[in-house]
Amino acid sequence: MTIYKAPVEEVGFLLNDVFQFDRYNNLPGFADAAADVRDAIINEAARLSEEVLHPLNAVGDHEGCTRHDDGSVTTPAGFKEAYRQIAEGGWMGLSSPTEYGGQGLPITLTQTVQEFLNSSNMAFAMYPGLTMGAAAALTVHGSPEQKQTYLPKMVSGEWTGTMNLTEPQCGTDLGLLRTKAVKQADGSYKITGTKIFISAGEHDMADNIIHLVLARIEGAPAGIKGISLFVVPKFLVNPDGTVGARNGVMCGSIEHKMGIHGNATCTMNYDGATGWLVGEENKGMQGMFVMMNEARLGVAVQGLAQSEVAYQNAVEYARERLQGRALSGPKATDKPADPIIVHPDIRRALLTMRAFNEAARALVLWTALKSDVAHRSNDAKERQAADDHLGLMTPVLKGVLTDGGFANAVAAQQVYGGHGYIAANGVEQFVRDARIAMIYEGANGIQALDLVGRKLPRDGGRAVMAFFAEVGAFAKEHGGDEAMKPFVAPLSTSLGHLQKATTWLMMNAMAQPDNAGAAATDYMHLFGLVAMGYMWAKMAKVAQDKIAAEGATPYLTRKLVTGRFFAERMLPETALRLTRIEAGCNTLMELPAEAF
Amino acid sequence: MTIYKAPVEEVGFLLNDVFQFDRYNNLPGFADAAADVRDAIINEAARLSEEVLHPLNAVGDHEGCTRHDDGSVTTPAGFKEAYRQIAEGGWMGLSSPTEYGGQGLPITLTQTVQEFLNSSNMAFAMYPGLTMGAAAALTVHGSPEQKQTYLPKMVSGEWTGTMNLTEPQCGTDLGLLRTKAVKQADGSYKITGTKIFISAGEHDMADNIIHLVLARIEGAPAGIKGISLFVVPKFLVNPDGTVGARNGVMCGSIEHKMGIHGNATCTMNYDGATGWLVGEENKGMQGMFVMMNEARLGVAVQGLAQSEVAYQNAVEYARERLQGRALSGPKATDKPADPIIVHPDIRRALLTMRAFNEAARALVLWTALKSDVAHRSNDAKERQAADDHLGLMTPVLKGVLTDGGFANAVAAQQVYGGHGYIAANGVEQFVRDARIAMIYEGANGIQALDLVGRKLPRDGGRAVMAFFAEVGAFAKEHGGDEAMKPFVAPLSTSLGHLQKATTWLMMNAMAQPDNAGAAATDYMHLFGLVAMGYMWAKMAKVAQDKIAAEGATPYLTRKLVTGRFFAERMLPETALRLTRIEAGCNTLMELPAEAF
Repeated sequence: MTIYKAPVEEVGFLLNDVFQFDRYNNLPGFADAAADVRDAIINEAARLSEEVLHPLNAVGDHEGCTRHDDGSVTTPAGFKEAYRQIAEGGWMGLSSPTEYGGQGLPITLTQTVQEFLNSSNMAFAMYPGLTMGAAAALTVHGSPEQKQTYLPKMVSGEWTGTMNLTEPQCGTDLGLLRTKAVKQADGSYKITGTKIFISAGEHDMADNIIHLVLARIEGAPAGIKGISLFVVPKFLVNPDGTVGARNGVMCGSIEHKMGIHGNATCTMNYDGATGWLVGEENKGMQGMFVMMNEARLGVAVQGLAQSEVAYQNAVEYARERLQGRALSGPKATDKPADPIIVHPDIRRALLTMRAFNEAARALVLWTALKSDVAHRSNDAKERQAADDHLGLMTPVLKGVLTDGGFANAVAAQQVYGGHGYIAANGVEQFVRDARIAMIYEGANGIQALDLVGRKLPRDGGRAVMAFFAEVGAFAKEHGGDEAMKPFVAPLSTSLGHLQKATTWLMMNAMAQPDNAGAAATDYMHLFGLVAMGYMWAKMAKVAQDKIAAEGATPYLTRKLVTGRFFAERMLPETALRLTRIEAGCNTLMELPAEAF
Repeated sequence: MTIYKAPVEEVGFLLNDVFQFDRYNNLPGFADAAADVRDAIINEAARLSEEVLHPLNAVGDHEGCTRHDDGSVTTPAGFKEAYRQIAEGGWMGLSSPTEYGGQGLPITLTQTVQEFLNSSNMAFAMYPGLTMGAAAALTVHGSPEQKQTYLPKMVSGEWTGTMNLTEPQCGTDLGLLRTKAVKQADGSYKITGTKIFISAGEHDMADNIIHLVLARIEGAPAGIKGISLFVVPKFLVNPDGTVGARNGVMCGSIEHKMGIHGNATCTMNYDGATGWLVGEENKGMQGMFVMMNEARLGVAVQGLAQSEVAYQNAVEYARERLQGRALSGPKATDKPADPIIVHPDIRRALLTMRAFNEAARALVLWTALKSDVAHRSNDAKERQAADDHLGLMTPVLKGVLTDGGFANAVAAQQVYGGHGYIAANGVEQFVRDARIAMIYEGANGIQALDLVGRKLPRDGGRAVMAFFAEVGAFAKEHGGDEAMKPFVAPLSTSLGHLQKATTWLMMNAMAQPDNAGAAATDYMHLFGLVAMGYMWAKMAKVAQDKIAAEGATPYLTRKLVTGRFFAERMLPETALRLTRIEAGCNTLMELPAEAF
């Protein structure tokens, strides 16, 4: 019932015109992703998403996953075959190192593909997505032997991967973790404990599942400093690389949850399972952070992705549903009523989604390019600046894109009226699926705390100062340009709000840390609005330059109108966010817990 | 898994202290609702909701309703017995006329009971709720014979009622309605057509179901002016009042939908069903408006109700979940971690819900009292003023309380982290159930249009001017009181925003109606914020007076803190709403439909 068309033209505008992808040709892998190669990849990813994965989205929601008495799990009809196409097409190794069979192409391309996969079928896209996250952690922290054993099969998609952090008593606070690891004579460990909420923990799509597991080695220090990372395969791997004996890890149950029914969310029971240490003893958080940062950007993309597919369906419905007449007089006089897209309130909702989507996509690709630079540049200063950006923007993107993605899925559902509440029309699934992205990989409140508590003060505020300098320089350069004023003037105002909020935090959070906590969520959204406003100003500049050079097109005109909408109606929210931040923590902290 | 405790103390504070219920003792029915009677009613409604209905809430969600091949529908286990208790307890007739077996008590009391029922089990509460709406329409527009035939049985709960408006091609725009009515020799009509989304359309809880149906009499004018209202019982009623032959109306299917699974949402097929005209030919909208206005306030209460129960569960979770330590240093040093309620960001979320709930409840009871005055006062001027208020506030309450109720259910779910996404923990049901309230009885965008297009200009703006005068007078009276400044100063600022927005609409919407449409949703929320800010200022004044007279209590202290939170962090949103309104419609209307 739902439609999806991958936003290929948008991606082209961003990569080619706004971010000038080709100017990164000095970085490894970029020259292999010249315009024609990029187009081929993007178009094929679009086709797969539209034709193969999207038709399975409702099926996955309706059927869900089934756990059998032996602990095995069956995925929804069609998932296994679709996964085979993803693996055989080499999609999981698009940006993986060539030495493990990957194609070594820029992460920026992978993020584009990820958006399409997650728009078309988020529950499905998590299987390859988590595998790529686990492979990234092994690439950075695994021993040469571990890399040889696992990475080629994960890059090829023959095996999938998972992250095992959460336990019943331990979510955000990993220091509370209880899963135990006992060292064996052969250097391996016996892992025992229960992990919950393990996405893709068990399924029928791959020959093996490689679990990355946080556990505490016997005798290790309490808290976060006693946590180690282990690789625990579902099937032990024989010396020749073939799959061997079943390991002592089982799916104990799968969760009945609000959405992403097509993904198996498992309770995993480790009962003396054999595992191997990844990286150093008690330094497990380092490896996990590689996975989590990768995963957080991946979740940000899910927010955008659900917003995009929800938007597309809402537009389709708004163009087709005939109901009432335009306030300014009938438009479709040959029909019994006008399509509801004539109504300004419907357009307000649609443009809110569209303006968000286009800025969010720009933020994702901008940040993905920085990730490529951080990982591939020869220039240490360039790498550092890119890494600063990546660290700063990761919590902002995760929090803002998933909050916004959910809000837009709800807004899209609202366009449908009562029909949006009916399961068969599909839009309510977008709402239920999008909801999890605000929660997992660190609930958005935790992202906000990460931003104000860690990313902001780090290195004396170097990252945030660089961001202010870049946005400020853009505003200064184009502030005198009359055509750019509708974009630059509000951006300057909002940048001022962000700077004021940052100063307020510096002045007030040191003495009273609760002021940081009280400001965190509003600060994260304030930051996200300014970053989106900057993306809009950049896009508007490019659109205006192209119009000046080649003349107006419907695409470029829409770009400017949508950007004006953002500047007029969405960006001004920064003032409200600043007001809330400056309210401080006192009122929040006044009541005892029992008074709530 | 979920808890619910009816907010009895809150209701007492509002009825006794803020609105001084007893000063309405000159109105019929009020003297019968003296303090001891009120307390008995409220406490018994609380008990029923907590002990009988809430335990069935998850059952209803999980089991849903089942349609059988013969068109009959079974409700979830326990619903039938619970309904019997509601009917036998006289709850459906609490405010109904005594001549039909009701108790004639104030509507204000019924709204309080409705909140409790809807918090504890929204899908269930719709069965009696819709019956009361249908009974209200028959009370106003039915013939003496129709009233005698149907009302006693509906008031007693032996029979239930429904509203049949929507058809596949006809939702908001009732002018597109196709269901036909053909007059018979005996004065009855044969009704033929298909109605969709009929809540409680078929079920197993009552002996008869009285459908109120909009249809078009053969030869009637096209559009909204050719619509008539009919009463169509599921079983024809014998002259002696007993149930007779089955009528030609059947449930064709029940919808699989996002939430309120315990309520049967039916497609109703009318196949030459026998019906009788209610009111005059082609004046069906009048009778339907009685039901719709009643229903819209009922839906507003659902928004509050879901927000309240979601809040209570989030607080419970936040007090029990141990995770991390307070930013200002450990609090529960005897435990492995602090309860998450120590974190300012969690408190921000909880206080946002609480500040909304308390103001929303005040708005509901204030408006319910006006409804009592409008229906029961002897003084024509008083009746008119109360009716003005009712008309003005109905769309505001419906739109703002349901948008806010849903947002708060989502925020409550967020407090749970990953556990909030798991069905067994119950909070995700609140989100799915609360979602429908933004849609049915006129989607919230339609409420906003009703407000700016109809309610605002009506009678030269008399209603809105009275509202401004009342809030302005309060601000003037208490503006000099130092203790009231934290409440009154922000209220005055926000009232200024609302007045400016109203003037802007007067200046700009006449010439260009799309400016009204473009402003509608923001205007509705701006109005709601000011109305809530006024309720908070009133509650703060009463709390301060009580503290001055009797000393501080934890209850009164919390009231003032929560009110300050609203003034500091929620009320300032009015500035953003004004900015958006003043942006006008131009950017919204610029793109052709195909450019979206």
